[in-house]
Order: sequence, then structure tokens, then C-alpha cells
Amino acid sequence: MNETTIIAPSVLSADFSRLGEEVEAVCRAGADWIHLDVMDGHFVPNITFGPPVIKALRDRTDKVFDCHLMIAPPTPYLGAFACAGCDIITVHAEATTHLDRTLQAIRDVGCKAGVSLNPSTPESVIEYVLDRLDLVLLMTVNPGFGGQDFIPAVIEKVRRVKSLIGNRPIHIEIDGGVTPETAPLVAAAGADVLVAGSAVFKGGSEEHYARNITAIRAASDGAIRKAA
Amino acid sequence: MNETTIIAPSVLSADFSRLGEEVEAVCRAGADWIHLDVMDGHFVPNITFGPPVIKALRDRTDKVFDCHLMIAPPTPYLGAFACAGCDIITVHAEATTHLDRTLQAIRDVGCKAGVSLNPSTPESVIEYVLDRLDLVLLMTVNPGFGGQDFIPAVIEKVRRVKSLIGNRPIHIEIDGGVTPETAPLVAAAGADVLVAGSAVFKGGSEEHYARNITAIRAASDGAIRKAA
Amino acid sequence: MNETTIIAPSVLSADFSRLGEEVEAVCRAGADWIHLDVMDGHFVPNITFGPPVIKALRDRTDKVFDCHLMIAPPTPYLGAFACAGCDIITVHAEATTHLDRTLQAIRDVGCKAGVSLNPSTPESVIEYVLDRLDLVLLMTVNPGFGGQDFIPAVIEKVRRVKSLIGNRPIHIEIDGGVTPETAPLVAAAGADVLVAGSAVFKGGSEEHYARNITAIRAASDGAIRKAA
Amino acid sequence: MNETTIIAPSVLSADFSRLGEEVEAVCRAGADWIHLDVMDGHFVPNITFGPPVIKALRDRTDKVFDCHLMIAPPTPYLGAFACAGCDIITVHAEATTHLDRTLQAIRDVGCKAGVSLNPSTPESVIEYVLDRLDLVLLMTVNPGFGGQDFIPAVIEKVRRVKSLIGNRPIHIEIDGGVTPETAPLVAAAGADVLVAGSAVFKGGSEEHYARNITAIRAASDGAIRKAA
Amino acid sequence: MNETTIIAPSVLSADFSRLGEEVEAVCRAGADWIHLDVMDGHFVPNITFGPPVIKALRDRTDKVFDCHLMIAPPTPYLGAFACAGCDIITVHAEATTHLDRTLQAIRDVGCKAGVSLNPSTPESVIEYVLDRLDLVLLMTVNPGFGGQDFIPAVIEKVRRVKSLIGNRPIHIEIDGGVTPETAPLVAAAGADVLVAGSAVFKGGSEEHYARNITAIRAASDGAIRKAA
Amino acid sequence: MNETTIIAPSVLSADFSRLGEEVEAVCRAGADWIHLDVMDGHFVPNITFGPPVIKALRDRTDKVFDCHLMIAPPTPYLGAFACAGCDIITVHAEATTHLDRTLQAIRDVGCKAGVSLNPSTPESVIEYVLDRLDLVLLMTVNPGFGGQDFIPAVIEKVRRVKSLIGNRPIHIEIDGGVTPETAPLVAAAGADVLVAGSAVFKGGSEEHYARNITAIRAASDGAIRKAA
Repeated sequence: MNETTIIAPSVLSADFSRLGEEVEAVCRAGADWIHLDVMDGHFVPNITFGPPVIKALRDRTDKVFDCHLMIAPPTPYLGAFACAGCDIITVHAEATTHLDRTLQAIRDVGCKAGVSLNPSTPESVIEYVLDRLDLVLLMTVNPGFGGQDFIPAVIEKVRRVKSLIGNRPIHIEIDGGVTPETAPLVAAAGADVLVAGSAVFKGGSEEHYARNITAIRAASDGAIRKAA
Repeated sequence: MNETTIIAPSVLSADFSRLGEEVEAVCRAGADWIHLDVMDGHFVPNITFGPPVIKALRDRTDKVFDCHLMIAPPTPYLGAFACAGCDIITVHAEATTHLDRTLQAIRDVGCKAGVSLNPSTPESVIEYVLDRLDLVLLMTVNPGFGGQDFIPAVIEKVRRVKSLIGNRPIHIEIDGGVTPETAPLVAAAGADVLVAGSAVFKGGSEEHYARNITAIRAASDGAIRKAA
Repeated sequence: MNETTIIAPSVLSADFSRLGEEVEAVCRAGADWIHLDVMDGHFVPNITFGPPVIKALRDRTDKVFDCHLMIAPPTPYLGAFACAGCDIITVHAEATTHLDRTLQAIRDVGCKAGVSLNPSTPESVIEYVLDRLDLVLLMTVNPGFGGQDFIPAVIEKVRRVKSLIGNRPIHIEIDGGVTPETAPLVAAAGADVLVAGSAVFKGGSEEHYARNITAIRAASDGAIRKAA
Repeated sequence: MNETTIIAPSVLSADFSRLGEEVEAVCRAGADWIHLDVMDGHFVPNITFGPPVIKALRDRTDKVFDCHLMIAPPTPYLGAFACAGCDIITVHAEATTHLDRTLQAIRDVGCKAGVSLNPSTPESVIEYVLDRLDLVLLMTVNPGFGGQDFIPAVIEKVRRVKSLIGNRPIHIEIDGGVTPETAPLVAAAGADVLVAGSAVFKGGSEEHYARNITAIRAASDGAIRKAA
Repeated sequence: MNETTIIAPSVLSADFSRLGEEVEAVCRAGADWIHLDVMDGHFVPNITFGPPVIKALRDRTDKVFDCHLMIAPPTPYLGAFACAGCDIITVHAEATTHLDRTLQAIRDVGCKAGVSLNPSTPESVIEYVLDRLDLVLLMTVNPGFGGQDFIPAVIEKVRRVKSLIGNRPIHIEIDGGVTPETAPLVAAAGADVLVAGSAVFKGGSEEHYARNITAIRAASDGAIRKAA
Repeated sequence: MNETTIIAPSVLSADFSRLGEEVEAVCRAGADWIHLDVMDGHFVPNITFGPPVIKALRDRTDKVFDCHLMIAPPTPYLGAFACAGCDIITVHAEATTHLDRTLQAIRDVGCKAGVSLNPSTPESVIEYVLDRLDLVLLMTVNPGFGGQDFIPAVIEKVRRVKSLIGNRPIHIEIDGGVTPETAPLVAAAGADVLVAGSAVFKGGSEEHYARNITAIRAASDGAIRKAA
């Protein structure tokens, strides 16, 4: 869908004491979207940040704010995240029993709608909501837990989701263990948006961020060209 | 217990895009403690921030990190907040059925232990845990909701808690609608720690913060002297 | 507070297939308020009715709609019950951890605010919210369970609540096992609103309803005069 | 399975103040079943009515009482709904982790057993319980939310469920946005029971109800004949 | 109420691989009641045993089976525990919002009814259910957690409960850290039933059990005589 | 995978008053594994036993302890069950939203990892976690309910799971209604481990146990040979 892979650095790996600067630096370094990992300590065993933090970052960049809600239930908070400045809101399929409705509600607050699947969740959960979707986020680690490896079993799921989507304009995003080594695997299978945390922010300076983003994108774009 | 009121600015009213600077500024401006309002979207209808944000601030100041957990259940997260650098961890009495145990667990992770009471909660809930407590936080607004007024009915609760405590070294902290106008009311009743958000951070510069803190402290100290 | 006891027939004992007629009949028969028992199958083990049923009755009478929410949590539904035409909304103290806030929210939607206490709940739970209250509903049976007897232990609670209230304009309402035999006991202790279900609707005609209401009111008023 | 479509008007669109009359009118007007939408404010964000309301209607007609439980968990209430006079009890697949058991329990209380699927739920959830089923209810709007449009993506699900069922005597029922325009689409795909609310009750008189029912049935039967 | 303290060994400290023998041994060694600690992993963070284990022990002794339900909610399981052979069923006040009803239900299944209070829970929660009670169990450690010390703050609660009870025939039972050293403290304050686990079962033979029980009883009875 | 069927008697049908003896007897009688049915009264409507009971049995035999957790959520208890001596820990797919993570956690505590599926659960829930699995447990009755018949619809699921697994070394275990009559049906479809409760323990002596185990194994092995 895009000519080149969209790189979405996750601010979870940035320095939270100067998040505005970090966001500006990573945007200048080539980030396409800013990925915002919201965790509530209930859907996942960690608490990160919510609307007040996002709102404070909104006037630092015009880039897409790509908000990943690892919260349950998500629906009561959609308005707050839209007001805080999110452009895309992605909810977990496992976090709502009324997925079709939740996706409608995301669009009703003026955002693009995404759905995320845990590593073990089969793609059948999205078969009947494809018309409500702008993005599918496939987790390649379990959300909210630290120190995990990229799960290769998900690569096949990327392929199947790609095929389900057909020619609908829906992004396939990957989150978890994305590096220059794993990026080509998911890109070749159909992913066009890659979230990366430490793989982008390691080194700690804008120069490093630029080099890190370039490396991931090059690896991914190369795999896409080869697959084409 | 203190010669002068302890002022604990809440970072919820600071600029989250440059939180390190804000914390440094408010500390130079006279803050005694930094108050950290953690909300999980379940105990209260808002999500603010969690351990990763606190950790990023820890090396900006040596002041006491006074962490107020508006989360349910709190016990699974005590270790994470201790590791992030909190000095005091306060849980809500309404958020745990094993309050005595939770307070022991806070001390077991090396922190001072506080308990917070919603505006409607009677002080009888803390009568049997006084030996486990370093701090009682009495809410003078409902936690997690915006735009509320100071609830004067709580002033009587401050008096009763003061009397329950006797000569134990336990702080009485007030959170909600604290201003130079309301500070004397709670200070006269026995409170020695005041949380303030917009009343400290309004104006937006270190100079304003200093003036704001001075005003609250003066009003409070004056009331304490008069009461003595 | 009133010269004569307020009688609030509960529609739970009416014929649900012709509820409009029943409400009109009981109003002509002398009912002061219409008591609406809403149960959600979660706070109590029964499901009765919600806003659509109440709305359909609103244009049958101008009498006060006295809505008793036996639901948890109540807060998300306050707007719907206000829109349906309720005048008083009463929530259970056991059903919300933010009672002060919930009571504010009831007044914010334009209704009078009540709080209900289960038979075992001590009156200390309302000590700090008296300024938010228009009504206290003391249950003399356990809500949502059938076939129970009036619990005499609650009579003492009526006295204590009466004393807590002082001269604030707050109704004390009783629900559960109210008959001409039990009415004087609670009226003498301070209750001024009596809910009655089968004791009002038994017989099944307007004539019966009138006789039943008169009997309860006479018993209650007599006790009040004697107590005065 | 039937020679002509079964029309099941939902009483949610009737006048609740005279529900007995409404049920009698719609039965005389040609309704085959009476559809009863039970919502508990937990599985869906609305509270409608429960056993006491259903029981009051039972002696007004001999038609099938087709009860759709939008409650979670449903199992503790099956007995109460059977006693109230329901003939078919349909539970949501998303509302119980022990679906096979819940379906057995429905038959154990003497009712026919149905399962309902939210718009996004894949039909794989019923593959292993076909032998326990008398009815599959496919939602064509999200249950419990107002003002929604018919979701065409579900039509394909009707086809697949029809094929899963094979020649078992299981009804396929549709609920949500059914009108003379949408009825043919689902009927052609395999549905033989249509729930309709405002599409039946609009106009407000028995005469209107008869005309409305006839229009839906004609559209549906026509599509079935064409498909055959 | 009794001339001598009732000793209730908790089988949690017995050898679960030969529980029948252990129960017989401890009964011969002088145990008055057998205390059964049921934990569900939800009300407390441990899972111990349920009805099938209790049932298997029932024909080994005629002693009172004193069952302490550390489960939430308790009400659905009362019948199962009665059938398994329990004589007394004690529920936690913190585990049910309808305490009066739950206590009625215990008596309805033919058992004596107890209520247990966590260390931090004030005695006000039982003020209105005294007529439903045969036993009050005051926890002197937090239930379900290992390795805790006896909490002396509860001794004052024993005194207050004793005074609340007046001359009603209600046992006061103590559970947690009971030893010959702590037994006199609670006995002097009014407790007449003592639960003990390792303090009874240490040593591992019937002879030890007898000596252990004798030591606790002697210490307790001595304190009662002195207090009288 | 095995030359002969693995027989795993469930201790739920043993005599809990002398569980050590029963386990020894059934092991001498030919049991291959000991199946441990843990129920918490929340995932299923029964409470059986937990870690303390299992620990007491561990030194009675070296056979594999095959622990089936019918608890939700399972993850907080994995360590306790590993410490108690379990070799295999099986969780329910319906009991955790982070199945991949839970399975990793089982292996992290040193156990083999299993996943169990309720009768109605489709096999698609395990498609992406096959690399994390040592065992798949297919329920042929609903877990936690008594008096149920073997559900033949699950036989087809055994076949499909067998095919999904391919040549990975993953056991397929069956639990529910296993007898010499039903064993061949599931064995022929691919199951290699059979749980049996009353079918093993009926008769009540070691001699009976041996005969019962032999009968099930013979029936199962015969079916496997025929299928080969």
C-alpha cells in the first residue's frame, strides 16, 4: 500500500523526562508515525501512560499519532484519546465483546480504526469487521511483558491477514521484537508498518535514531522489493 | 509533626512533554515532596501514568516521591513502583480487601506506607491499621474526576483522624482543591501535607511556582500557629 | 418533615401487562410517589426493568417517580434514568466506591439524590455525604430476594440516621416488609416515606389499593403523632 | 425449514405501559413469535426487562416466547426465564465460557436452545455445539446500542451457518435493521426467522402492525422462492 | 460461654496425604472442633481445598466441622459445604454485599452461621446482623498469606465485639498466630474458640498434638480465670 | 507418539481421606500419570484442591503429576503448582487472554506446558502456539460439572488437532466420560493420553484399579492398532 515501509517508533523506549524533545528528535530522524503504547495494568500487567501525556506531545509534531490501547474495556476511553490528539486508535480484539461497535465508535470520534491481535489469537476474529478497519496490528510478542523474543509463528498470520484484506486499504502493522533482522521477515509476508522501541531509541541521540530507522527501513524495503 | 506545612505539588498539572524540567523547577521553587497521581482507568475513570514515567524523573531530584495509587488492586504493582523510585506509596482503602496486608507489603518493598480515603469513606476503616501507617491521605475531591470543588465536609474527618492518630508519627495529607483559601481550613484541623496541582503550576514558570507555593504555605502555617 | 407519611407503592407488585393503568389506579387511590425497583441481575440476583419501561409510564401521572437502582455500578446509567423521567434516583452505598461523586452526578442530571443501605450496612457510610442527600433509603429486607420478613434490627438504624441528619431536609424511606403492622415501628423511629408492594397492590382493584394505602398511612401517622 | 418466514416482533418497540394489549394486537396482526430482548446493563449497555415482565404477558397469547438473553453470565437465570414462560432461550456465545453446558442447561429447564453471535463473532464458535441447538441468532447490528444500520457483512455469515447446519432442524434468526428492504437479503442467504422492532410497531395500531408484518414476510418469502 | 476454651485445629497444617488419620489423631488428642480453611485463589491468594475433601473426612469423627470460607462470593457454595458435612459455615464480611442474606442462607441449609473480619475491618460491619450470628471469627493475621505474625491491634477488637454481643450466645473465635503465648491475650479479651495450625500439628504425632493442645488450652483457660 | 496409551487416573474419584495410599495403589495398579483436577469455583462451579494437597502427595510416587488447572486467571499460580511438584501444567485457553505468554511462563517454571479446550472451543485457538505446547487436553465433558455424558462431537476435534500438530511431539489427552467403550473412539482419532476418574477408581481396591486400567488400555490400544 505504501512505496516504503512506515516506521513507527514507540515512545515507551524514549526518555520520559523529556518526551517532547524525544518526539521531535525521532521525527527529524525519519519516523513516519509516533506509536503510543497505552497500558492500564488490567489488560496487560503494566501501567504506562494515558491521555494527559499524549496531549502534552501533540503540538510537538504533525506526524500521525498511532495509539495502541492495551486496556480493557477500551470503549469508555475512546473520546479521551481522540481529544488528546490521536489519529489512529487501535484496540485489542480480546478486550471487547462488541468489536464491530467499538470500531464504529473509533470512527465516530474522528479517528482511523485499528484492531490488534495477541500472538495466539486467530485471524478469524476480524473476518467480519474488515469494512470497519484502517489497520490491523499483529503482535509478535505478548503485549505488556518485558524481555521477550520475536515470535516467528506470527509470520504466517501476517500472510493470512494480507490475503483476508484483499485490496482494501488496510495497513498491516507489526509490534514486538522488530529489528533489521526480523523486519524483512514480516515485510515480505505483507506488513507495511513497523513499530520499534529500543531498536530505534538505542544510542540515545538523534543521530543514532536516524541511523537506526534507516537500517530497519532498508531491511524491510529490500524484502518487499524482493517479494514483488 | 512538622514545623511548617509540607507542600507536595502534583505533576498532573505540569507539562508532561518536559516533565524533568518541571520537576526540577518546582523543587527549586520550594516544593518539599513530588506528588505522583497514578490512575489506571479502573479504580478511577482516567489513565495518567505509571512506573516508566516515574523512573525517568527519579534522577532529577532527591525530594521525596510521594506516590498516590488510584489503582485497584494495588498489591501486584507495589514492587514496580518501589523500583521506579517512590519513597511513599499510598493505596486506597476502598481498593483492597486485605488492607493490613497491603500496608505490610509496602514496607516490605522499602517504602513508607500511606492509605487514602475517598470523601465519603469513614475513618473507621483505618482504626486497626494505625501501626502500619506513615501517612493518611484524605481526599477533598473525588479522585480521578476533573473540575470539582473542595468538599468542606472532610474538614471534620481531618480532626477525627488527627485524634485517632494520637502521638503516632503519621502525616495527614490533603488532596483536592487546595488553595491559599482552603489550606488554612485543613491545616487548622490537623493536616500537615498539602497536595496542590494547578494552584502550584498556574503561571507556568519557576517564578510563579515559587510564589504559588509560598502563598499556600503561608496560609497554612498561619492557621497552624493560630490553632496552636 | 411531612405532616403525613408519604406512601410509595412499588410497581414490582403491579400487573406488568397493563402497567399504565395500574399506575393511574394507584395514584387515584392515594399514592404519593411511584417507587420503581430497578434490578440488573448483578448487584442483586434478579432482573426487573430499566429506562424503557419507566419512560412508557411517565405521561400517565405527575406524581414523583422514585427510582431505586439496585444496579452496580450505577453511575453510567444515571443519565438514562433521568431522561426516562425519574425525579429521585437512589443508589446503593455498596454499589459505588465514589459515593460522593455519584451523588453529585445525580443532581447534575437534574434529579434529587438518594442513597440506600442494605440491612447489614452501618450508617457510618453516609456520615460525610449528608450535604449531597435528599433521601436515605433503609432496606428492611435484603434487596432482590423474594419471600423475606421485615428485619427489626433496622429500626435502631432509622433512629441513628434520623439523629445524623439533624434538621437537614432529608427523607428517610423504608423498603421491605412494610405493612400496617410494621409501619408504625419505623415511623415512630423517624421514617417519613414508606415503600410497599404487595401490601398496596393486594386485592387487585383500585378500591383495594385505596383501602390498603389508607391502612398503612393511618398506622404510620398514628405512630408519628404518638411519638411527637 | 418453514414454508414461510417466521416473523418475531420485538416488544422493545411496543408501548410498555400497555404491553399486554400490544402483544395481543401484534399476534392478531400476524406475528408468529414474540421476541423478548432482555438486557442487563453488563453484557450490553442498556437495561430493559426481566422475568417479572415476561411472566405478566404469558397468559395473553399462546405464541412462542422467543427470549434473547443479552446478559452475562446467563446460566444462573435460565430457570427464572423458563418459569416466566419462555419457549426458546437464546444466549450469547460471547457471554459464557461453557457454551456446551449452558445449552444443555436450557434444554434441562424445558426450553428450546439458541445461541446468538455478535456481528464480529466468527461462526467457528458454534461448530462443536450444533447438536445442542434449535436456533442460531445472527445479529445484524450490535446488541444493546441504538440507532444502528443493518451490517451487510453478516449476510455471508448466514450462508456459512446455513452450510454448517446441514439438514439439522435448526432455525437461523436475524436481529437488527430488518425491513422489507433487508429481509430478502438474509432470507435468500438462509434465514427463516426475522426479528423486527420499529419496522413492525411503527404506525402504532393493529392495522399498521398487520400491514408491516405482511410487507416484511412478502419480501422475505419472495426472496426464498427466488433462491429455491 | 464455655467453661473452657474450644480448641479448633486447622487441617491446613496436617498431612494432606493421610488426612483421615490426622483428623482422628487430633480428635483423640483433645481437639474440640476441626477447622477447615477453604481458599479459592480469588478472595485470598491461595487455593486449598473444597467440598470433596471435607466430605471424605466427615465419617472419621463426630466433632464439629468448623468451615471458614475464604472465598468470594460465598453464597453459591453454601449448599455444597453443608452437604459435605460442615456444621458451622463462616463467611467473610468483605466477601458479600448482602451479608444479612448470606447469613440467613447459611441457617437455611441447616448450619450455624459465622462471620469473619479481616484484621483491618471495623466491627461496625456486624452491628446490624448480631441476631443472625452464632460465631464471629476475628482474624489476627491476614487470611491466605503465609509467614505472618499475630497482630496485637486486634485484641482491642475482641473486646469491642464482646461488648457488642452482650449476652447473646455467640462464639468469638480467633485465627492467626495462636500459640500458648498469644492465647491468653485474646482469651482475656473475650475469645472462647481458638484456631491453631502449626501450634497444634508440630511434632507430627498424636502425642505431640495432645501436648500442644493442652498447652494452648491451659494458657487460655488461665487467662480467662484471671480475668473473671 | 507412545506405543501404548498413557492412562492418567484422576484423583477426584479417589478417597480424599487417604490420598497418599490411593495414589500409591493406583500407581502399582498400572497408572502412568496422576491427573490432578484443580478447580477454583470461578472458572468452573466447583472447588476441589490446590498446591498444599498436591505437595503432600509428591513423595508417594515418581509418576508424572499431570495438573489440569480449571482456574482463571492461571498465571499467578503457576509457580505454586510447580513448587508443589507438578510435572505438566495445563491451562484452559478460555482462561487467559495472553495464552502464548502463559505457556512460556509454564516452561519458565520448569514444567511441560499443556492447553485445554472446552467442548465448544474451536481448535483455531491453538494454531499459533503449537511450538509452545507439550500437550493438548480436549474436554469431552464440560469441566467442573457432575453427571455428564461423553460428548461425541469432540471426536472430530481430536482428528483436526492431530492434523494441526503434524509430527510435533505433542500429546493429545482426553478428559470426560472415558470408559472402555469411549476410549477406542478417541484413541482411533489420535488421542494418546486418557484421563479417567470413576472408570478407574470404581470397586475401591487396588485389584479393581488394575483391572479397570487394563480394560481401558486394552480397548484404546486395540483401536490404535486397528487405525494403524
